[in-house]
Amino acid sequence: MTDAAHMPGTMPNAYQPGKGNLSKADQDLVARRQRALGPAYRLFYETPVHLVRGEGVWLYDKGGRAYLDTYNNVASVGHCHPHVVAAMARQAGVLASHTRYLHEGVLAYAERLLGHFPAELSHVMFTCTGSEANDLAFRIARAHTGGTGFIVTENAYHGVTYAIAGMSPSLGSGVDLGEHVRVVPAPRTGGETGAEFAAGVLTAIRDMQRHGIKPAALIVDTVFSSDGVFADPAGFLAPAVAAIRAAGGLFIADEVQPGFGRTGAAMWGFQRHNVLPDMVSLGKPMGNGYPVAGLVMQPRVIEVFGAKARYFNTFGGNAVAAATAMAVLEVIEGEGLQANCAKVGAAFAEGLRGLAKGHAALGELRAVGLFLGQDIVDGEARPDAARAGWIVNRLREEGVLISATGPKGHVLKIRPPMVFSVENVAFFLDRLERVLKAG
Amino acid sequence: MTDAAHMPGTMPNAYQPGKGNLSKADQDLVARRQRALGPAYRLFYETPVHLVRGEGVWLYDKGGRAYLDTYNNVASVGHCHPHVVAAMARQAGVLASHTRYLHEGVLAYAERLLGHFPAELSHVMFTCTGSEANDLAFRIARAHTGGTGFIVTENAYHGVTYAIAGMSPSLGSGVDLGEHVRVVPAPRTGGETGAEFAAGVLTAIRDMQRHGIKPAALIVDTVFSSDGVFADPAGFLAPAVAAIRAAGGLFIADEVQPGFGRTGAAMWGFQRHNVLPDMVSLGKPMGNGYPVAGLVMQPRVIEVFGAKARYFNTFGGNAVAAATAMAVLEVIEGEGLQANCAKVGAAFAEGLRGLAKGHAALGELRAVGLFLGQDIVDGEARPDAARAGWIVNRLREEGVLISATGPKGHVLKIRPPMVFSVENVAFFLDRLERVLKAG
Repeated sequence: MTDAAHMPGTMPNAYQPGKGNLSKADQDLVARRQRALGPAYRLFYETPVHLVRGEGVWLYDKGGRAYLDTYNNVASVGHCHPHVVAAMARQAGVLASHTRYLHEGVLAYAERLLGHFPAELSHVMFTCTGSEANDLAFRIARAHTGGTGFIVTENAYHGVTYAIAGMSPSLGSGVDLGEHVRVVPAPRTGGETGAEFAAGVLTAIRDMQRHGIKPAALIVDTVFSSDGVFADPAGFLAPAVAAIRAAGGLFIADEVQPGFGRTGAAMWGFQRHNVLPDMVSLGKPMGNGYPVAGLVMQPRVIEVFGAKARYFNTFGGNAVAAATAMAVLEVIEGEGLQANCAKVGAAFAEGLRGLAKGHAALGELRAVGLFLGQDIVDGEARPDAARAGWIVNRLREEGVLISATGPKGHVLKIRPPMVFSVENVAFFLDRLERVLKAG
Repeated sequence: MTDAAHMPGTMPNAYQPGKGNLSKADQDLVARRQRALGPAYRLFYETPVHLVRGEGVWLYDKGGRAYLDTYNNVASVGHCHPHVVAAMARQAGVLASHTRYLHEGVLAYAERLLGHFPAELSHVMFTCTGSEANDLAFRIARAHTGGTGFIVTENAYHGVTYAIAGMSPSLGSGVDLGEHVRVVPAPRTGGETGAEFAAGVLTAIRDMQRHGIKPAALIVDTVFSSDGVFADPAGFLAPAVAAIRAAGGLFIADEVQPGFGRTGAAMWGFQRHNVLPDMVSLGKPMGNGYPVAGLVMQPRVIEVFGAKARYFNTFGGNAVAAATAMAVLEVIEGEGLQANCAKVGAAFAEGLRGLAKGHAALGELRAVGLFLGQDIVDGEARPDAARAGWIVNRLREEGVLISATGPKGHVLKIRPPMVFSVENVAFFLDRLERVLKAG
């Protein structure tokens, strides 16, 4: 299936308007979207899914069909978790105001959140989105270092503001990278992963210096989600972090996707590498769907910025955001979801490896907790984006939602709500096997 | 009181840590804020207010004291409006998912919202904050025009992302303006307001061209909120809009503060000037506190951007955001809040003008609907930031919340929830009179 090659930077699993097998009613919805929302919006799937309800790891479409959600990490403690919904509704009925008045809720949450970090990371600032958190990190890194150079991986995604889209090569060649942004190769399985990755970072630093650009920071998603999921060997990030620090730059850990326990062994992806970031950005799963995000930092990095600038995010850290995020943290702790990610993730990886023995399309698997990247390959073990897309769409027909990622679009991205169970894994594997047998 | 002169770009009415008359418990909260949130956060007031509850136009502190909220436009339909809270809670219990699946809610809201715009403005894209909306407008304007030059007013505030903070001179000299950003004088009362404002824009355009910079857009808050509130004479914006269009640039109306009926005579501030923006950014009041914002545009401006880039905002336009924003629109329409802004705003302005006859400190008043800027002046009619700050803080002691704004910090910024009544106006005027008599 490699004839339909993946175009770098195009979105895997994007709906092609006019195609698919939509009902008349859903065709009307698509037409209404095109009229009202315009051409920059994308839908998932050959035939988009029309959702009406979610509960736990299940999503339901208009016709009442259930889909096992093996993709959406935003609803990290399960779709519509009653404890989170109740906390949000309760606070919204009492007070929703902002951080320029004193309020205990935002402090109680800030302190509880910071309790999950190494002691050095002792400040947090609240935003509404991971994009805003990374954009704030960008501003703080510039202020602290006096530098302007940023290093990102080749298929990184860090957000959609102007500055951060310019640090997100996965958005494709239609989105210019920032003038002082340098792109380095993603980590690679096998060989000297840590030394090779650090060598790429060093090359970028030298190129910056050769152009008179002072390095400001290296920023990575700590499981390299959009590069295709790279978490092993544990510790491989350390030499690259040392390299950017030696050049006067900061290390920013983007935990928007890996954070809040998903990697199983720890609360944050950076902990797998035994490195201490200068800043850590948080987002998607923080409010289980409520728009709340944040940036955790070592106090010294905010000194210059805080002295010369103020930062006010109208909705960031408002009383409802704090109450909702607190409820999410309570569920992660109370239901033992980090441990669940470790246990169920291990079963998931084992199951996929078992299935791979009978199906050559399943290439390398990279997994850490409930974050799995499964390469799909052709008969000669080459990346096969078309087959990956085909699998994603057949799984949708079988009632399972995932997507594809990676610079070649051939990596199945598996990232379910953290309440996923071993029974859910069995369901997924059964459906995947069915699809692979049909292909 | 002019000895304590306002420093341009410093925040009016910011709390000075260590000062004020805080209870021991609130001093502890402030200390916890400094430890957990860091130095870029600011509180309002000499003695910050510790809020615990809100209802309608009233906010309540820890001690049970009521404050008339004459400042917070986010809670535009009233704090904790039951219809809005119920809609949010209901949808959060059913589905909170995003725009890459089909969902009717976001379309129903998009269409109802667009129904409040001139027919040419027929696309909307959803974000979580006004900052993100303006940042998206920045990206789209660059893609559409091929230009990089932006024009803003001298004390403009448009948001906190890197690109937009660079277009927000009100953040102060500690925040660099963008290299291709040009600042023009704010409108002025009296004289030829429209011709003078357009002359400033024309000067900026010529300066850009002289530097080889192609103009991309003029962006203004359509009531010039942070410049001190300028809405008259109606229509004065038209020549400046014509000037930027003649230079190949776009006109972006920032309706984050004036929008959603506040100006009384129309739903949007730009309508007062009989101009048709290329893009309109929306924010604060859109979700009555829920983080939802958006960018409305003419379809032609998104063609280039939409063809070469995709835009996905994880939380933007999610099902809960759409349901909440829909409920806000239902309340604005159902309770006739735009008309209420016209009626109560007129009473408010009349009352302030009456009070000014006996109090020389009340200088020029600029008002449009429930958005009022009241200059505070000294004995020689010069801007008096210290006295404005003093009034703001004495009003807080009298149970009334407002703030100050403008490049000289001497403008009382009055911008209450739109459910404000003539009785609330009487209460405000009574307390202000008390304060003025004591000063």
